[in-house]
Amino acid sequence: MPVPDVDIYPEATGQAAKYFAEHSTEEPLKLYAGWFCPYVQRVLLVLHLKNIPFQYIEVNPYEKPKSLLDLNPRGLVPTLVVPTADGTQKPLFESSVICEYLDEVYSDTTKYGPRLLPEDPYERARARIWIQFVGSNIIPAFHRWLQFKGEDSEKGRHDYIESIKKFAEQIDPVGPFWLGKEPSLPDVIIGPLVERYWVFDEFKGNGGNWPSAKDGEIGARWEKYVSAIEGWQAIKDTTSDKEHYLPLYKRYADNVAQSELAKAIREGRPIP
Amino acid sequence: MPVPDVDIYPEATGQAAKYFAEHSTEEPLKLYAGWFCPYVQRVLLVLHLKNIPFQYIEVNPYEKPKSLLDLNPRGLVPTLVVPTADGTQKPLFESSVICEYLDEVYSDTTKYGPRLLPEDPYERARARIWIQFVGSNIIPAFHRWLQFKGEDSEKGRHDYIESIKKFAEQIDPVGPFWLGKEPSLPDVIIGPLVERYWVFDEFKGNGGNWPSAKDGEIGARWEKYVSAIEGWQAIKDTTSDKEHYLPLYKRYADNVAQSELAKAIREGRPIP
Repeated sequence: MPVPDVDIYPEATGQAAKYFAEHSTEEPLKLYAGWFCPYVQRVLLVLHLKNIPFQYIEVNPYEKPKSLLDLNPRGLVPTLVVPTADGTQKPLFESSVICEYLDEVYSDTTKYGPRLLPEDPYERARARIWIQFVGSNIIPAFHRWLQFKGEDSEKGRHDYIESIKKFAEQIDPVGPFWLGKEPSLPDVIIGPLVERYWVFDEFKGNGGNWPSAKDGEIGARWEKYVSAIEGWQAIKDTTSDKEHYLPLYKRYADNVAQSELAKAIREGRPIP
Repeated sequence: MPVPDVDIYPEATGQAAKYFAEHSTEEPLKLYAGWFCPYVQRVLLVLHLKNIPFQYIEVNPYEKPKSLLDLNPRGLVPTLVVPTADGTQKPLFESSVICEYLDEVYSDTTKYGPRLLPEDPYERARARIWIQFVGSNIIPAFHRWLQFKGEDSEKGRHDYIESIKKFAEQIDPVGPFWLGKEPSLPDVIIGPLVERYWVFDEFKGNGGNWPSAKDGEIGARWEKYVSAIEGWQAIKDTTSDKEHYLPLYKRYADNVAQSELAKAIREGRPIP
């Protein structure tokens, strides 16, 4: 979704470069993506978990491919182009919607592994509540802490820590993932943010001061959760070298980033 | 969700009072509600469409019932208390999550009528994209237009009109509802906002200047859509007398409303 800034590194590096190279050949399912984008990474996590064949297409925001613009004039990233019932190709956007679509279409558990939402309707609804909470509370607090200065930033930090604690209360007590042993949709939705944890230690002087076992049971649960996300193979395989994320997040920390999300936070508008 | 203001009328009137009286006896499904709340109305529309037995419980925000606070300490409205697989009663919140839960649990079409999301996975995803759009674009623009003054209000008005036009482009060309002949989840999500259309004519001098046939095909589609929503029996049966909404929306228009939503818009924070 974000439109990146001028000097962003043009392509994936490290583990992600290798993974994307393995998904560079023509496939009916095409993911138009930016290597740095946390929302793109959500979709990649689902594709990786379910081992779904797809074609990765890196989008240069200044030269968006015609194949994308023809289907989605706004050229949003991520866009997943899918074959539909009427034999045409159509675009899907909104990362959480794409993830749920993939889980519904690639639902054969013998072929694609466990479903990403619980079978039980109440538990499924509970997962959806906390998926919404990531978008409505955790992401805005993440960006206010990162982009703002002084008191406003401090308020963002407070809201961020309080909201991850609320999220942590809902994690399966045994874990390590949100619903238990296997990763599922809530992990997919928050995973890329947890993976970008270090930006606050790097740019906001947080010095590793995160909820942990020293804060009691919920802190311990969160600490274990962060380790599970960081050790998750799908996260590792879709992450580029840290040095290329650094200048991008520095622009957020300097509050000069030009993504739609950065601008919305700066101007006090809702996140588009 | 919103915490209402001090001088709000204490209970439903008109058609809604009649409907709620019919749902006042003890049932396993309990809806903790405020008669004025558009998010509550979404849940009511689904309960009405599917003719699901439920108990309506009007919540006085200054005396929240213990039965609610025991299950949901934040006392959010709407909260739907549901019986779960382990034999206990548990709370659900977030109106769109509750609506989808009801559609999944009351899924027998011979008993509860048509499903509220399309069977086809692409069409289902498309519906979810535009449901998200209501929350991320239409509602914030609605409130900026309503609460702000001068240039900021004018920008809200512009964003609101542009976003309902984008939503209208996606409405079934034959209609009258979003997916065609029958109401479905996108109608449930936007319906209570469309029903509150008049507040801009009343408080913001809009003088009935809405997209309509004079603006071409998309305008005509929107005009037809608004008529369908206004004529929808479930909307009529869950709406109170206009005179009691008036003081509530006047407080929004004066930008002194104290709901969490009103405060978030005022302070440029994301909607909680």
